[in-house]
Amino acid sequence: MRAALSEIDIGEGLKVASQMLADIGARTSDGVGITRTAYGEGEQLAHDMVAALARDLGLEPLTDAALNLYITMPGSSRTKAPIFVGSHLDSVPRGGNYDGLAGVAAGMACLVAFHAAGVSLERDLTLLAIRAEENYWFSAQHVGSRAALGTLSASALATATRADTGRPLAEHMREAGCDVDALGNGRALIQRTAIACFLECHIEQGPVLIDREIPIGIVTAIRGNRRCKEARCVGAYGHSGAEPRALRRDAVFAAAELVGRVEEFWIARESEGEDLVVTFGKFTTDASAHGLTVIPGEVVFTIDVRSHSTDTLDRTWAFIQETCVHIAERRNVAFRFEGQTQEAPVAMDAELRRALLDVCAETGVPAFEMASGGGHDAGDFAAAGIPAAMIFVRNANGSHNPDEAMDFADFATVVRVLARTIQHIDGRMA
Amino acid sequence: MRAALSEIDIGEGLKVASQMLADIGARTSDGVGITRTAYGEGEQLAHDMVAALARDLGLEPLTDAALNLYITMPGSSRTKAPIFVGSHLDSVPRGGNYDGLAGVAAGMACLVAFHAAGVSLERDLTLLAIRAEENYWFSAQHVGSRAALGTLSASALATATRADTGRPLAEHMREAGCDVDALGNGRALIQRTAIACFLECHIEQGPVLIDREIPIGIVTAIRGNRRCKEARCVGAYGHSGAEPRALRRDAVFAAAELVGRVEEFWIARESEGEDLVVTFGKFTTDASAHGLTVIPGEVVFTIDVRSHSTDTLDRTWAFIQETCVHIAERRNVAFRFEGQTQEAPVAMDAELRRALLDVCAETGVPAFEMASGGGHDAGDFAAAGIPAAMIFVRNANGSHNPDEAMDFADFATVVRVLARTIQHIDGRMA
Repeated sequence: MRAALSEIDIGEGLKVASQMLADIGARTSDGVGITRTAYGEGEQLAHDMVAALARDLGLEPLTDAALNLYITMPGSSRTKAPIFVGSHLDSVPRGGNYDGLAGVAAGMACLVAFHAAGVSLERDLTLLAIRAEENYWFSAQHVGSRAALGTLSASALATATRADTGRPLAEHMREAGCDVDALGNGRALIQRTAIACFLECHIEQGPVLIDREIPIGIVTAIRGNRRCKEARCVGAYGHSGAEPRALRRDAVFAAAELVGRVEEFWIARESEGEDLVVTFGKFTTDASAHGLTVIPGEVVFTIDVRSHSTDTLDRTWAFIQETCVHIAERRNVAFRFEGQTQEAPVAMDAELRRALLDVCAETGVPAFEMASGGGHDAGDFAAAGIPAAMIFVRNANGSHNPDEAMDFADFATVVRVLARTIQHIDGRMA
Repeated sequence: MRAALSEIDIGEGLKVASQMLADIGARTSDGVGITRTAYGEGEQLAHDMVAALARDLGLEPLTDAALNLYITMPGSSRTKAPIFVGSHLDSVPRGGNYDGLAGVAAGMACLVAFHAAGVSLERDLTLLAIRAEENYWFSAQHVGSRAALGTLSASALATATRADTGRPLAEHMREAGCDVDALGNGRALIQRTAIACFLECHIEQGPVLIDREIPIGIVTAIRGNRRCKEARCVGAYGHSGAEPRALRRDAVFAAAELVGRVEEFWIARESEGEDLVVTFGKFTTDASAHGLTVIPGEVVFTIDVRSHSTDTLDRTWAFIQETCVHIAERRNVAFRFEGQTQEAPVAMDAELRRALLDVCAETGVPAFEMASGGGHDAGDFAAAGIPAAMIFVRNANGSHNPDEAMDFADFATVVRVLARTIQHIDGRMA
């Protein structure tokens, strides 16, 4: 069987994927970057173009009530659970072309390659083009995949509003043609137990693979997080020349101490091999009250703590809380945390990770195991009990911006690994 | 002589001063606080009211080309250099009633007390009500006293604009009735060499006297400063989940490290008895780019370093520059400093300080020697070579706000000390 695998020609698949990336990119350009609004124009255009490619292959594109798109290449043994591959087609506004689309293109390349090579799998292979993954649009996580999996809540449908219109999710979905009445009731649109696995390719959103000069990342887990979107250090304003240090209640010195101590904690965790990233993305004195000669009485800041370990998340959060108590006491300031949220980490399937690593090893492709910092649809599949795995493609300049830079040679490597892994799984999984 | 001093009744002086504080406060209220705009309505009202009180005493109020007000009680030996006492009458917008006015009221109380008690000094005693001291109004320091001393520059007259109108200083002065053509040429409106000393009472703008439960502060020096009104730490924006620590160029971690190291330096200087205060009054990520899940790529901040020691100022500034270089190198960020300014510290006259301390000791008034954090007119007199001293009155809640809280009993104590000190100086100074 290994010999057979090595002979698959993915050339035709890459040709179609390359054209697909170029065409969808051109049609959804906003002049600065790419805009494929969730349940909006650009996303619909992309879905239509992917559906058209399916028809070219003689495959029937199907949609569910949330308008996720399913393109299935039938296998020889239709009683076996199908393999799902895919990603999302929406983008942030003025984003890049590869975030999401590259994963759908990789799945399409496999379908075309198997089709062109006349390879017949035992299992159905379904390419899934998912809706509304980007958190930018709705204050609801991963709308498309959660709708498909039955984990989209009724309250999200009613209350999540779109960033550009302020109108509710349900309204936008209905306008796009969704059967909203079939959603938000906890019932999955796809049969979870009938899916062998979900494989998602995605550009890496950070610089790790670029830095390590490795084309492929195999995701170990999707980091969970603990966050506060409105933390506040409250001291007292005062005359910058007239108050000695001991009598000040300076919010900048206090909050800066927190930042410094959290960084020390982070370094200590790292040195013990723990997975952790911490970001104070917003950190700001009050523009209506601050000034060159005014002791700052308030700092408003955000905290984003991420790890693939729940234990590390909890310990870091506890450390932050304790440190705030100590600083507040010593400096006569108060810390307030509003808008705290958390998401649990989600591990990728061990067997699938193993399969991906084996294929990389066999084909001499350098691969690196790493956590995913951002959330992805694969996390929702895993959380719903479906074995899931992710392959990151090396990408420069981050994501969510027009400068995303995925080398097509790396994309081709990923397609090669993905196609072989699908064949592996086809024969091996239960 | 000492016995005579102890018998002066300041009751009538306090009565007039109390009424003056109440009346001027009532007439210059803006509904929230006090507004006495420099070369504007509120300041003019206050000047008119003080001039009227002078006439009640049978004294002729005089003004100079900058409309500073001089009220002189003639001494018996008119060849001796006069003693000046006073402060400014303008306020910040929505400020408090005591900043500036209390010093003029204290001087008026002395004039009235000497007059009522029939005390005759050898020297002329001149109460000076100064214009436009608050930096809030014009981007020029201490306009009134510098005009009087000949140290107001022609460029300040032409280019300094008022915060509320945006129009130039010269225009506002001309409209108020000043003889602008007599200003900005380096010539003093008062004869510097003919002045024995300038004594300024002022509310303390910080909490030191409140904290120490001492009614009076004797100012050792007016702190100089080194400042940067637009400092910037530039790193790189990125995905908060996807970039490991080592690859980040996080501007908040970098700038917070600077804040922490500067605070350590401050504590070390303090422990060696040096005079220093440091303030990062503004410290802010960019609202158009920052976010909960975005690594912050830029922080803009201000630095205000003050000390009565030029050496401490210079060493602190050098430390800040060096620390920025080290942080920039280690964290792959850049620091930029725009809008750097400095003011030299000004020492108060040692003989006058001694006289004030002696009077306090004689009368059993607890007094505390301390640096002035803010700039004051007395600093300009000292810088112009005129012996100058300052008395701080205990005051809660800082200054430049409607909550300034000077206890009238403390004010009375200051008037008592001031009147005795004037008598001391009258007989003792050359």
